[in-house]
Amino acid sequence: MFDLTSYLAAQRERINAALDAVWLENSPPTRLVSAMRYSLTAGGKRLRPILCLAAAEAVGGASADALPAACALELIHTYSLIHDDLPAMDDDDLRRGKPTCHKAFDEATAVLAGDGLLTLAFQVLSGPSSRETGNADAWLRVIGEIAQAAGYQGMIEGQMRDMDGETHGFDLKDLESMHRLKTGALIQAAVRTGVILGGGTEDLIDRLDRYGGNIGLAFQVTDDILNVEGDPAVMGKAAGTDTTRHKNTYPSLLGLAESKAFAEQLIQEALGALAGFDEKSDPLRAIARYILNRRR
Amino acid sequence: MFDLTSYLAAQRERINAALDAVWLENSPPTRLVSAMRYSLTAGGKRLRPILCLAAAEAVGGASADALPAACALELIHTYSLIHDDLPAMDDDDLRRGKPTCHKAFDEATAVLAGDGLLTLAFQVLSGPSSRETGNADAWLRVIGEIAQAAGYQGMIEGQMRDMDGETHGFDLKDLESMHRLKTGALIQAAVRTGVILGGGTEDLIDRLDRYGGNIGLAFQVTDDILNVEGDPAVMGKAAGTDTTRHKNTYPSLLGLAESKAFAEQLIQEALGALAGFDEKSDPLRAIARYILNRRR
Repeated sequence: MFDLTSYLAAQRERINAALDAVWLENSPPTRLVSAMRYSLTAGGKRLRPILCLAAAEAVGGASADALPAACALELIHTYSLIHDDLPAMDDDDLRRGKPTCHKAFDEATAVLAGDGLLTLAFQVLSGPSSRETGNADAWLRVIGEIAQAAGYQGMIEGQMRDMDGETHGFDLKDLESMHRLKTGALIQAAVRTGVILGGGTEDLIDRLDRYGGNIGLAFQVTDDILNVEGDPAVMGKAAGTDTTRHKNTYPSLLGLAESKAFAEQLIQEALGALAGFDEKSDPLRAIARYILNRRR
Repeated sequence: MFDLTSYLAAQRERINAALDAVWLENSPPTRLVSAMRYSLTAGGKRLRPILCLAAAEAVGGASADALPAACALELIHTYSLIHDDLPAMDDDDLRRGKPTCHKAFDEATAVLAGDGLLTLAFQVLSGPSSRETGNADAWLRVIGEIAQAAGYQGMIEGQMRDMDGETHGFDLKDLESMHRLKTGALIQAAVRTGVILGGGTEDLIDRLDRYGGNIGLAFQVTDDILNVEGDPAVMGKAAGTDTTRHKNTYPSLLGLAESKAFAEQLIQEALGALAGFDEKSDPLRAIARYILNRRR
């Protein structure tokens, strides 16, 4: 029986160590670096990097080869949280139970810390550990995949639509495409780049892409569900905020029971995409179930 | 006699055409894309991309090979202007004679448009035209050079120090290191990446690095001078703002005459670094003189 809890803890430790090592040796402890590290070490789940490493292993690769991509994905995720929390955007004071970056520092520093993390992601992707693999073509492709998923046709457009939806309302179709852009694209890129760096074929990339797309959307559906019935103490953030903000969510559009059934269905599709994969993809299977049952 | 005016006009046209082509064919005309394009087409001098192409030619390369890097440099420069103009930072209403991005759109859109341009830069650097060169190693190095110059050890740290200097004041040494980070690093990266993509040796990279470092700082010294005695109508932005903001600048710390002498000296050093280069580096020579004598 695969033990997900120890697996996640071990991978998290490994990724945190790798993230500690992204700072160049001569990095002075500037205010900018402090703000970047503050948000990066604020206790994230490390879901995207863990998926990237697990996908590399699922196709028979060595997850160590994907470590720079795993770090870059977390740097990008963290930057997006800092910018989304800004007063001009979601204006959030708390994130993972701690003051948001612009509260702990100031708004200008938070904008620049986000910019710094985003840029550092590409520094890591093109750094010595990528360049010394002798696999520059794969890394160039990975950089392109991550930039596209994180960019104006992916995550950033998702955040634009999310803000727009708060004003104008969403139907179910708008909601799904917003989530697929805002959260799904980067999760999908995590899986895809793991497969690429693990040496997977185009066919494997396509199959695991289906897994990534389904768990990415499921993650957001469960996020909406947790906002209704989650425990703020476990989540490290307030519940009920979507209702207060009159946001259209899966529970508000579909009802709670129907939303849970939809999340369940997405996870079944994700597991279906793993049919025919051997036990090396057990972590991906367990992560899919964890997304469905998560408490935070 | 080398005609700089027609050279700059021709290169600018070429770069603008390449920048028009960075948008993927299926890009819908979203508000996000409108904001990104608004700032990108607001009439920049295209100095960084022109330097990149000219450096590739100076070492005997084909400037077409450096075009994706040239575009990426301008995308990054434009993002930095959008974020620097934000209310939480310099709070500027006008840029190049037009409303700044957050004035023309709104603050959230401006943050995201900046994020989008920065991310797009890396999409372009890793896109088909880079991947099809069969020169993935060089492109990976170029991505690393640009990310480092634009990042927390370069341009972003420069902006942090610039804001800090407005509060705490600068001496001449602080001022120089701030400018070398905020403006110099990306200009230097433009020259370096041009040489790399033009196929230049490590020795040529070093020699032109000296050119880039000197013109980068000179550019900022003349910027300070223009803020004192420039014509707002020609510059498309207000003059005298440094004095109003009590900013320490080269003229305020050295005096106007001494600042001009310093700029002249930097340009002479830049020209010195080009000694032994043939007429293919005439554009770089002319650009150095142009930086000294520019009106905007």
